[in-house]
Amino acid sequence: MKIILIGASGTIGKTVKAELAQRHEIITAGRTTGDVLVDMTSRESIEAMYAQTGKVDAVVCTAGKAYFGPFEQAKESDFYTGVQSKLLGQVNLLHAGLDHVNDGGSFTFITGILADDPVLNSSCLAMVNGAVNAFVGAVAMELPRSIRANVVSPGLVEASVEKYKGAFPGHIPVSMEHVAAGFVKSVEGAATGQVIRIF
Amino acid sequence: MKIILIGASGTIGKTVKAELAQRHEIITAGRTTGDVLVDMTSRESIEAMYAQTGKVDAVVCTAGKAYFGPFEQAKESDFYTGVQSKLLGQVNLLHAGLDHVNDGGSFTFITGILADDPVLNSSCLAMVNGAVNAFVGAVAMELPRSIRANVVSPGLVEASVEKYKGAFPGHIPVSMEHVAAGFVKSVEGAATGQVIRIF
Repeated sequence: MKIILIGASGTIGKTVKAELAQRHEIITAGRTTGDVLVDMTSRESIEAMYAQTGKVDAVVCTAGKAYFGPFEQAKESDFYTGVQSKLLGQVNLLHAGLDHVNDGGSFTFITGILADDPVLNSSCLAMVNGAVNAFVGAVAMELPRSIRANVVSPGLVEASVEKYKGAFPGHIPVSMEHVAAGFVKSVEGAATGQVIRIF
Repeated sequence: MKIILIGASGTIGKTVKAELAQRHEIITAGRTTGDVLVDMTSRESIEAMYAQTGKVDAVVCTAGKAYFGPFEQAKESDFYTGVQSKLLGQVNLLHAGLDHVNDGGSFTFITGILADDPVLNSSCLAMVNGAVNAFVGAVAMELPRSIRANVVSPGLVEASVEKYKGAFPGHIPVSMEHVAAGFVKSVEGAATGQVIRIF
């Protein structure tokens, strides 16, 4: 398959790329590095990315950010960080990408455990994760030409334990291999509308 | 208790008002009618509402809209309808309202069954419902002064069956009394961070 991987240089993206590249042609995309550059907060940038890549069989996103911090101290603009990046960025990857994905192709998005099992300071990240999880379940019902859409929701990943473990008391880290397997399940499997929880 | 009810003139709001008014002082709020007027898509309007009401014991929201229609035909602005109203409108009701709620008070928001059990054309509504459900679970952990936050997620309500039943095949309508009871559970009970599913 020909696969666009948005966020290929990130912690999870690198692992997903290494796994999928064994069997597929990967077009890497990112904000500052990659075969194509894309700013997922911009609909125009997403459309420009698809214009460069041409038709593909799968779109995989391992990118997207959101505010992580105390709710009371958040500014209204902090709410929009996640809305425009991890939430509507991924919605726009699907909406703008439908015409660029072959029949039977797929979209695989990323959320995370905080939608189901939050920690302190995670309200804005939980919000966008919960949004994308529910969105995928609904939108999969109406995708044309047997196109599928799923989301992988990883727990705290092993590669991020040193950086984040203080914020995730009691969370059991998940291996990078398990996370990559979630993306394989979506891209190479037949499921649609699923939240593939890796935790 | 002194309670602000945003959306008091709506289908669900009227029922919730009738129930809560038996035991509490209700300040009704709405976009075009109510004791105070509020446009929940505007942070400034929400702040002006709280400035008028003074301190309260509970904030209840039964309002908020989102795009309902085919995903492929949606415009990017349709994604923002729900984001600014039912999603960030409710987030801002909490964020701007914390200083206006007494110790031990509560916020009760509204979502709906589509986050868990979507129907065709509901992707944008499912998205905002899923967002608010996850947000409440996370933010409740960090609210000060024993303030609580919950969300009531009703199924297709009896009063809306005639209008919407074609869009909800096989959905069993829920009675208005059951929906009102969900709000009572949040306002008068002790739960926090819960999605109170009425379906």
